[in-house]
Amino acid sequence: MDCGFRFRPTEEELVNHYLRKKKQDKDFKVDHIIPEIDICKYEPWDLPGLFTEPESPYQDMFFFSPRDYKYINNRARTNRVTERGFWKITGKERVIKGPRGSIGRKKTLTFYEAGPAGHSLLA
Amino acid sequence: MDCGFRFRPTEEELVNHYLRKKKQDKDFKVDHIIPEIDICKYEPWDLPGLFTEPESPYQDMFFFSPRDYKYINNRARTNRVTERGFWKITGKERVIKGPRGSIGRKKTLTFYEAGPAGHSLLA
Repeated sequence: MDCGFRFRPTEEELVNHYLRKKKQDKDFKVDHIIPEIDICKYEPWDLPGLFTEPESPYQDMFFFSPRDYKYINNRARTNRVTERGFWKITGKERVIKGPRGSIGRKKTLTFYEAGPAGHSLLA
Repeated sequence: MDCGFRFRPTEEELVNHYLRKKKQDKDFKVDHIIPEIDICKYEPWDLPGLFTEPESPYQDMFFFSPRDYKYINNRARTNRVTERGFWKITGKERVIKGPRGSIGRKKTLTFYEAGPAGHSLLA
């Protein structure tokens, strides 16, 4: 990679190129560009350390995360709980547009740190 | 080049890597990344068309331009006149810092379009 080039994909490239190929092509190697992690297994402050060459902890990071559901027999609710808190949807969902219409949806999640476990029950 | 990677160099990379190598190493090929043009020979609205793959005319473009002086025996004043106007320094000059102190200076130039040539003399 030449000096000064950085991964700054458009939303369309993320969905139409990377996500589509990852789902469709078993031989597509993408982990070195967009690794797959389970966000429920990490706290947000641990994420920058997972990237081998973090340019800066404040820079955008890109990863895929498999969706985990709260109930095995119901896909209505996604589980986004970590050991120390949870991710919650904030703001409005946006549509990602491709050349021929909608290709995906974009949600913004905010992390909320939970208080000490069980503390309120003990008080 | 993998999908989604774009040239987004830091100021330090531009000076310490690209400009330094261009000056020091005759075999360094860089025109495909940062072409060299004479800004006095182009109007600003013609610049996006010089780039073979303009992602968008509003995106940053990078090029080297040789310095041209107003007077051949005096390097105090730089010539930045084009056929249709001129580039003028605006705002404060900034220092570009490397790992061991200042490595360059950054000026911001604004283009001013000149009125019809000679018009005021004829009026």
